[in-house]
Amino acid sequence: MGEERAPVPRLGQEPRGTYLRNTWYVAGWASDLGTQPQQRTFLEEPVALFRDAAGVAQAITASCPHRFAPLGHGTVVDGALMCPYHGLRFSGAGVCVHNPHPGGQLPDANLQVYPLVERHALLWIWMGDAAKADALLIPDFSWLSDPKWEAVRGVTVAEGHYELYSDNILDLSHANFVHPALVASAFTEGERKFWQDGSSVFAEYIRLNDHLSVGISAVMGTEGRRQDFYGLVQWHAPAVLYFDFRAGDPGTPREECTLLPSLHAFTPETPDTTHYFWATARDYKLGDAEFTAAMRGALEFAFEQEDMPIIRDSHRLMRGADFWDLRPVILGGDGGGVRARRMLQRLIDREREASAAA
Amino acid sequence: MGEERAPVPRLGQEPRGTYLRNTWYVAGWASDLGTQPQQRTFLEEPVALFRDAAGVAQAITASCPHRFAPLGHGTVVDGALMCPYHGLRFSGAGVCVHNPHPGGQLPDANLQVYPLVERHALLWIWMGDAAKADALLIPDFSWLSDPKWEAVRGVTVAEGHYELYSDNILDLSHANFVHPALVASAFTEGERKFWQDGSSVFAEYIRLNDHLSVGISAVMGTEGRRQDFYGLVQWHAPAVLYFDFRAGDPGTPREECTLLPSLHAFTPETPDTTHYFWATARDYKLGDAEFTAAMRGALEFAFEQEDMPIIRDSHRLMRGADFWDLRPVILGGDGGGVRARRMLQRLIDREREASAAA
Amino acid sequence: MGEERAPVPRLGQEPRGTYLRNTWYVAGWASDLGTQPQQRTFLEEPVALFRDAAGVAQAITASCPHRFAPLGHGTVVDGALMCPYHGLRFSGAGVCVHNPHPGGQLPDANLQVYPLVERHALLWIWMGDAAKADALLIPDFSWLSDPKWEAVRGVTVAEGHYELYSDNILDLSHANFVHPALVASAFTEGERKFWQDGSSVFAEYIRLNDHLSVGISAVMGTEGRRQDFYGLVQWHAPAVLYFDFRAGDPGTPREECTLLPSLHAFTPETPDTTHYFWATARDYKLGDAEFTAAMRGALEFAFEQEDMPIIRDSHRLMRGADFWDLRPVILGGDGGGVRARRMLQRLIDREREASAAA
Ligand code: FES
Ligand code: FES
Ligand code: FES
Repeated sequence: MGEERAPVPRLGQEPRGTYLRNTWYVAGWASDLGTQPQQRTFLEEPVALFRDAAGVAQAITASCPHRFAPLGHGTVVDGALMCPYHGLRFSGAGVCVHNPHPGGQLPDANLQVYPLVERHALLWIWMGDAAKADALLIPDFSWLSDPKWEAVRGVTVAEGHYELYSDNILDLSHANFVHPALVASAFTEGERKFWQDGSSVFAEYIRLNDHLSVGISAVMGTEGRRQDFYGLVQWHAPAVLYFDFRAGDPGTPREECTLLPSLHAFTPETPDTTHYFWATARDYKLGDAEFTAAMRGALEFAFEQEDMPIIRDSHRLMRGADFWDLRPVILGGDGGGVRARRMLQRLIDREREASAAA
Repeated sequence: MGEERAPVPRLGQEPRGTYLRNTWYVAGWASDLGTQPQQRTFLEEPVALFRDAAGVAQAITASCPHRFAPLGHGTVVDGALMCPYHGLRFSGAGVCVHNPHPGGQLPDANLQVYPLVERHALLWIWMGDAAKADALLIPDFSWLSDPKWEAVRGVTVAEGHYELYSDNILDLSHANFVHPALVASAFTEGERKFWQDGSSVFAEYIRLNDHLSVGISAVMGTEGRRQDFYGLVQWHAPAVLYFDFRAGDPGTPREECTLLPSLHAFTPETPDTTHYFWATARDYKLGDAEFTAAMRGALEFAFEQEDMPIIRDSHRLMRGADFWDLRPVILGGDGGGVRARRMLQRLIDREREASAAA
Repeated sequence: MGEERAPVPRLGQEPRGTYLRNTWYVAGWASDLGTQPQQRTFLEEPVALFRDAAGVAQAITASCPHRFAPLGHGTVVDGALMCPYHGLRFSGAGVCVHNPHPGGQLPDANLQVYPLVERHALLWIWMGDAAKADALLIPDFSWLSDPKWEAVRGVTVAEGHYELYSDNILDLSHANFVHPALVASAFTEGERKFWQDGSSVFAEYIRLNDHLSVGISAVMGTEGRRQDFYGLVQWHAPAVLYFDFRAGDPGTPREECTLLPSLHAFTPETPDTTHYFWATARDYKLGDAEFTAAMRGALEFAFEQEDMPIIRDSHRLMRGADFWDLRPVILGGDGGGVRARRMLQRLIDREREASAAA
């Protein structure tokens, strides 16, 4: 995935959204961050991502303290991020380590440093109090970096509030309507269950002895055969989701079914736009490039051409209003999304109370 | 005209404009609404248009009460409009008639229903109190559906306030300047008269024994010959206009002249954008496809390439200010536009007073 | 440079920026204003530029007092600017001199007239009190119209506040980083000095006996040879800059070095967009079209592809905040930009106090 140096988003002086800050957000695919830094906006803040001399990924404020140039459009020199405008260099600790101009005094600037961890093929960023950043809180997506699994993946900036994107994954009943080629009636007609456990919300879909869609059957190599089918979505606050999709011949124990694990991670760029990271892996046909390309194409089409336009338009039709103020109809399939929205609201409220008290 | 599923416009929470509500607006060309529903915005409200099982055109709120998806991007199933996101189905009465999910309970949602009448080849929508919707108030454009007449027509979304578009038709003196190929000096140099009658405003242009433009002469087959020329514009509040254009050899009684009837109907999408519906018909050379195409091309060019950019820029130069606050110079040719603006303001004021009193 | 009739910018009712008004801004290249008028926005005001019957360039308000059409998209008839909508004609004195409609009474409209002077191949506009417009205050760029010099030049609308563009020219230390092909280390490693004299700010860069960049050497024909190098930037409030760049064999007296004079003039369109006029001239290889094209291409690339994206993004990253409120780091190279910003602020404050007192 190339770095096209897209213009920085236009933002106003005050943030418009309220976000959970003491949590891990996905900042990017680790392998997309090479020698070229990246300019990103997370939670309405400009963040520069780069790798230092040791290859360790770093995240600092992406607006140069000198004349506000986009540091993420700079280059890395001797492990420091060099501003593209007048060449000040900043370390991953956010301090100026080189001033190329006469005298060379180092300005006393402290850029905000965002804890950044490379794990499970992803970069995880902590937008809150660095002292609280605990890598143990990163959800387990080890299959993404496990050679036993081959993943297709993508990243895009999607219009719409990130909670609408979480809703979409938690309520898979949309699949029958939005992804007709990919999904049969299983998600609508099967058995489903929603629950909450600790800080996770779960949505489970089970359908035994039924036909999968043509699309999924092709991926799983089960065309024309009835299958038992298990889908389990796990939501991690604020918007990182794991989808455990399994199918097997009728009667196969769930643990022995073929698994297609998926990631759907949403990181707010602004209240109206969302970084969407997705991946789906398989543990068969490893190295089959043609199969991989077909699988990638089908999923990318589903997420970017089918889901995203509907969610974008739903977002616009909300016209900036609060979700609950719109008194939405709640359906059975919302058991996951509503739990997630309530829990996220509680977490944000608690965080704000704590910071107000401090 | 295909349905390109354009993104929903971005709108804020509160409407910015004030509109006449108890009146008929043109919502579309009847034949453009086939089996595929349409997503539209009228008076800053999202409206879904679709045909029910009986083929009757219906209009309901276009934001699904479940998760706000654009209902107008859905499909019609068993005569009901199915939401493209999770498949709830709504009747033309605005109630949910099918829930495809387990249990299948119908949510108690009442979408706003907009009276919609198919008449004169057009769909007419009533954005106000449904109890007051009286189809007899629809202006007579029966020539649009009369097989004796063959019409060329178009529809587009034009930037600019809809009253600027009404002004444009009521003051045909612009034609000499904006449409040089289409119009000779007749509209500027001829005799003209403006008056008001009931709730209509009229603008009349008469020029005897003069040359028409090359363009109009070609359409009428009177190249090089002097003609008597009669133009009568009738404005119906808020912005539906009929243009009765006649020409004939000098001395021909007005009623015996060749008539080219036109419709120009403007329906506000937002305070800054307008649905522009236009048509012009003839009762000769019926079925001559080449002639029809040339006529359509000439008119579309005039309205979309010549009028629209000037009105768009005029609108922007008003910078959101009230028309009268800008103290515009009033010319003789404004006799129609000013009457129409005043009458529309009175109608809107009266409607607001009545609703405040209620 | 053709006139593409770009749409008028969208602006709100009140200006958002505060500008120095009693001063000369560059309005355009004189030769770009031919028989076709121009529609421009300066300091958030719409301005029409045209040439009258005597060929004298005129500037008046570009919103027609009748129905607000963009006068700058009109045509000149008998030396007056004819509105493109209904054909009223306005003289350079801002009065209506012809009404083409029946009766032909001239409306009593007085468009604002902006003093406009054609000098040094440029049009200079005065956006303040006309009584104070003194052409002697126009800075001397006579080399632009002197046949001894052959200039390459350009004009574009650049995103970003105009002061960020002045900063860019006053602090040439950016060149090493932003224009690697064009500039060697001279601007960073050489000696530099900043001072203020009357209402001008100066930035001087001197480097003796060093290699120029490949790009500049090619323009000057000194490839591979060491040179003495002198650069002097002179800023005129609010944002018109002269860059005097000289180089010669080591030991050549400064006055005898080869001179490449440059203009960089910035005229605010809005607080977020800037008209950028630039030119660089030489007094050798006159008439060498190939050389001219190469020089023009190199400079256009530097200004439009290298400078402008960084300044655009820096501007966005300021998010509409005041420069000083952001507590920028000040480097040695800011000696010019900071002086210019302070002086401009004083001039604006003084002008506002004077007008408040009046
Ligand atoms: S803007 Fe970064 S060094 Fe100047
Ligand atoms: S958004 Fe319409 S059914 Fe869910
Ligand atoms: S808008 Fe200029 S003459 Fe009518």
